[in-house]
Amino acid sequence: MSDTLPSLILRRRPGHSLERPFYTDDAVYRADLDMIFARHWIFVGQEPDVPQPGDVMALHIGEAPVLILRDDDGGVRAFHNVCRHRGAQLVPEGKGGVGNLVCRYHTWTYGLDGKLLFADHMGDGFEAACHGLKPVALRSVAGLLFVCLADDPPTDFDDMAAVMEPYLRPHALAETKIARQIDLVEQGNWKLTMENNRECYHCAGCHPELTVPLFAYGFGFAPGQMDEAELAQATRYDELVRGSHARWEQQGLPSRLVDRLTGRATGFRTERLPLDQAGESHTTDTRAACRRLLGQLTDAKLGGLSFWTQPNSWHHFMGDHAVTFCALPLDTDRTLLRTTWLVHKDAVEGVDYDPTNLTAVWEATNRQDADLVAIAQAGVRSPAYEPGPYSPHTEGLVEQFCEWYLERMAAGLRG
Amino acid sequence: MSDTLPSLILRRRPGHSLERPFYTDDAVYRADLDMIFARHWIFVGQEPDVPQPGDVMALHIGEAPVLILRDDDGGVRAFHNVCRHRGAQLVPEGKGGVGNLVCRYHTWTYGLDGKLLFADHMGDGFEAACHGLKPVALRSVAGLLFVCLADDPPTDFDDMAAVMEPYLRPHALAETKIARQIDLVEQGNWKLTMENNRECYHCAGCHPELTVPLFAYGFGFAPGQMDEAELAQATRYDELVRGSHARWEQQGLPSRLVDRLTGRATGFRTERLPLDQAGESHTTDTRAACRRLLGQLTDAKLGGLSFWTQPNSWHHFMGDHAVTFCALPLDTDRTLLRTTWLVHKDAVEGVDYDPTNLTAVWEATNRQDADLVAIAQAGVRSPAYEPGPYSPHTEGLVEQFCEWYLERMAAGLRG
Amino acid sequence: MSDTLPSLILRRRPGHSLERPFYTDDAVYRADLDMIFARHWIFVGQEPDVPQPGDVMALHIGEAPVLILRDDDGGVRAFHNVCRHRGAQLVPEGKGGVGNLVCRYHTWTYGLDGKLLFADHMGDGFEAACHGLKPVALRSVAGLLFVCLADDPPTDFDDMAAVMEPYLRPHALAETKIARQIDLVEQGNWKLTMENNRECYHCAGCHPELTVPLFAYGFGFAPGQMDEAELAQATRYDELVRGSHARWEQQGLPSRLVDRLTGRATGFRTERLPLDQAGESHTTDTRAACRRLLGQLTDAKLGGLSFWTQPNSWHHFMGDHAVTFCALPLDTDRTLLRTTWLVHKDAVEGVDYDPTNLTAVWEATNRQDADLVAIAQAGVRSPAYEPGPYSPHTEGLVEQFCEWYLERMAAGLRG
Repeated sequence: MSDTLPSLILRRRPGHSLERPFYTDDAVYRADLDMIFARHWIFVGQEPDVPQPGDVMALHIGEAPVLILRDDDGGVRAFHNVCRHRGAQLVPEGKGGVGNLVCRYHTWTYGLDGKLLFADHMGDGFEAACHGLKPVALRSVAGLLFVCLADDPPTDFDDMAAVMEPYLRPHALAETKIARQIDLVEQGNWKLTMENNRECYHCAGCHPELTVPLFAYGFGFAPGQMDEAELAQATRYDELVRGSHARWEQQGLPSRLVDRLTGRATGFRTERLPLDQAGESHTTDTRAACRRLLGQLTDAKLGGLSFWTQPNSWHHFMGDHAVTFCALPLDTDRTLLRTTWLVHKDAVEGVDYDPTNLTAVWEATNRQDADLVAIAQAGVRSPAYEPGPYSPHTEGLVEQFCEWYLERMAAGLRG
Repeated sequence: MSDTLPSLILRRRPGHSLERPFYTDDAVYRADLDMIFARHWIFVGQEPDVPQPGDVMALHIGEAPVLILRDDDGGVRAFHNVCRHRGAQLVPEGKGGVGNLVCRYHTWTYGLDGKLLFADHMGDGFEAACHGLKPVALRSVAGLLFVCLADDPPTDFDDMAAVMEPYLRPHALAETKIARQIDLVEQGNWKLTMENNRECYHCAGCHPELTVPLFAYGFGFAPGQMDEAELAQATRYDELVRGSHARWEQQGLPSRLVDRLTGRATGFRTERLPLDQAGESHTTDTRAACRRLLGQLTDAKLGGLSFWTQPNSWHHFMGDHAVTFCALPLDTDRTLLRTTWLVHKDAVEGVDYDPTNLTAVWEATNRQDADLVAIAQAGVRSPAYEPGPYSPHTEGLVEQFCEWYLERMAAGLRG
Repeated sequence: MSDTLPSLILRRRPGHSLERPFYTDDAVYRADLDMIFARHWIFVGQEPDVPQPGDVMALHIGEAPVLILRDDDGGVRAFHNVCRHRGAQLVPEGKGGVGNLVCRYHTWTYGLDGKLLFADHMGDGFEAACHGLKPVALRSVAGLLFVCLADDPPTDFDDMAAVMEPYLRPHALAETKIARQIDLVEQGNWKLTMENNRECYHCAGCHPELTVPLFAYGFGFAPGQMDEAELAQATRYDELVRGSHARWEQQGLPSRLVDRLTGRATGFRTERLPLDQAGESHTTDTRAACRRLLGQLTDAKLGGLSFWTQPNSWHHFMGDHAVTFCALPLDTDRTLLRTTWLVHKDAVEGVDYDPTNLTAVWEATNRQDADLVAIAQAGVRSPAYEPGPYSPHTEGLVEQFCEWYLERMAAGLRG
């Protein structure tokens, strides 16, 4: 790039989309992998991805192959998915079950704790104890799994965990199973995927399915452009939110907004919000898609608890199911979006839930979003593109995503 | 590249093909986009591409998405195809019809004059007047459309327009319609596509269809290698050209050679040349492919008026139809060639013309040329490739293309 | 790359695999093409690839298209496959037969000796004698063809030729024909393909077919890890090798180890080794796959004469057939492996040999190796990969490959 990264960061115009190189330049992309994805807590999945001891899941965080497994004691661990002999990728991408981790190349064998158990022909001077798998920091927040590739992960994760566990606990993620998991490759830089997630300004025009359960007044609006009838509706929506919060918190369900998206390494935000009509779920009829509710819940009408994390995830927890979203960069202009639908582990497919109904809203919404990310990437490639203004009423969280990103890049450049 | 662009330009050996980095180096390619395609008049199509108000055509000039449209007053305009909000590509690649230009992302809406008409939720401080589409300079020469991405387009375009309009006017391009338009991706640098167009040294061996209407003696030849019979034929060809020019100019059709390919930003060349046999058209039987002649023409035997422009187009106007060629760089080693066949707008397909017959010669010739460009690209990638000599008798226009290119790159480097 | 090539070379830890950039960095790859593949003797095929005058074979050494042909006098020659006019690739990739070499572009015509015989329209000043094809140095060692792109090829090739000709002569490669030739693209850096070839530590676990004819004790082993029974077997294997060598050398077949892999430009190694069971060939039943033996051989039980060259080949010569392997880099992370099975030229397919039986062991082994190279490439891309230790007992030749490579890169950097 002709401009240096520090100068690009310094001259950023607040309240406006980022300059072209942030979305298109390979050097910025490599810096993103190094300073964002290798130094922060990255959402990678949930405990039900590896339900049993010996279950293993392999994925890439940027160029780093990582494996997540459940060990013999039932704990979840993460390791670099790289044999310590000649560097072969140990476990193939995807999921499987193993006794030990055996490299196919020269049969070096590691225990589920990462210890090197066997390496033939290495001679007397070889120290097996120095050649265990390299561990990757892993934390579970009420069943949501985050890893950090850095040796010294950000410590403010504890704070997020402390805040979020009471919100998430009633949905009992550890007691769920994966009903569906779908990978989608978006043709855009990972930041466009995230920015697209951080506003619903586009929802009215682009997401006919999602706007059935979601209230339009929850997306933000410019009050100056509204007539009295609209203002009255907006006021009623605010009252509905306040009333719902009060009711749910009385039921023991933390619901009020917590917004710590910026000014810290581990940015996050959460709030439980009412849904329209039946008010139960992100479905085309707004009713629960699964008869067996999550955990010990008995009331299906709990709205949706949303949980957003910087830099790469968002989640919606309803009474009957949860949906999690994990965005992982594949290249400067390609991003993997993995969506996971979770239901109670005792729910029976075809009896308690119809997976087509369960996934209909977000499958459609994801396809629509992928299309939007692609046209965004196509346009920002233009030399004529210049950062445009965010709506102060509907794109505040996009601005907060950009602020957090630039803060963390600046921190990374300081070393 | 290990050599700098200025040193590559300075050490170029006249009369020889360019050095390897000009065809293979990504940094030279980016410089080509910046100094050639973003600063000169680029042929992009013709008025019949957008015949009606609201018709829009989107294409890329290098990395810049551009849209061409016909506005409500019947004028043709060009804009950067990039929403001023968050940069989404506004109109999809290809052709369509619109009332206004509505961005699919957040429904920002622009008029056909580029003005921002609607942007929801932007609040009170937002100035719509500052967020219209960015215009791109556009000029029509007797219906041929050229755009320039620069803020200060080369002014010698006027001169080309003044020369060319009398030549082109009798063919009444504005009164034509598109009979066929075919895109072909050539596997070579755009300069190899252009160099291939600028000589017919290869025609005898490679283009069996094209050499039916074209006279071999029009391709140039080395007189020292010819016997007396051949020299006599060459002399007869010269006489035919002179006689034809005299006859056509008497009919009010400017025909004589104008060659201003070098020494200026807007290089061009034109000449009307006789065709062999029936002498009417670029068809396999040399007869008109369309019964309805262009404009008010009544004589089909008008040979072919050729018009070449630097850096990216060539055109042939016959009595019955016209063919235009637009070359656009896609990557260091890939080039889009768009070929358009135009007939009188009242001509009826299947009655006045058979599109297979109309396009047969150039469809075959384009395929053959794409193959030649591919082997040229494959060979110049070799570290052992060194620039070879152009034939002084048949490759003079290739040399003029290279001269123009190097002049303009040098001018670009001067700033 | 953030580290310079010299610093990467200097800090290499002996006995360990190479650092990540050697396998993944595009700049190192280009240096490999320049300093290894353009300056050393590269194995490209064998005389039976071009059996008759006018036979021509075109391939790429890195970015350099090269053609190998048999001239009218029966000699084998190599040229850069690039027309001296405008650089078109002269002969398409693959094999064919020609009278002269005619460029399709403008019909420039070269003799099989590379002389320019015809170039139309070039005018009086043109000197055809200065525009012959650029020759490439070519040497045949008992029918194995090596080319060197450098102007001053390493002279220690003579020494390799002198050593190897007595070993290879009894297999009479010039009297063979190609029974099968298969190209396979491995998804890894060329050095991973070579390193994989230079050890059989992985054979026990990965190559069920190859380990039928090969003795496990020939792969190396850590004596400290073996019990008495195993040590006794290893001793018996050593005795078998010594006894076989004595017998074969008495038959006039040089067999003893020559190891000159490092400390020289043209590194190589050879040894004839006994095979298990019937001991005749690399087949699934260890018996000769071709009834007609090579050359004048009458004894099928000759084990396998292996011949390894730096940087890109290995070969196995049995009594009944030979297999040659040529590795050519396609990109930083892609390598072409061409495998050729050769039998006596008078052997009749379907009568003397069944090609499925002939190729079964190495077709399976190549597929398995391609998979191993792919997982090696996938793992070394990880930022967490660090060079691991080679087994001193089984990976000595891998270490010698790396030593040679680094010696030659250092020599290249010195100029």
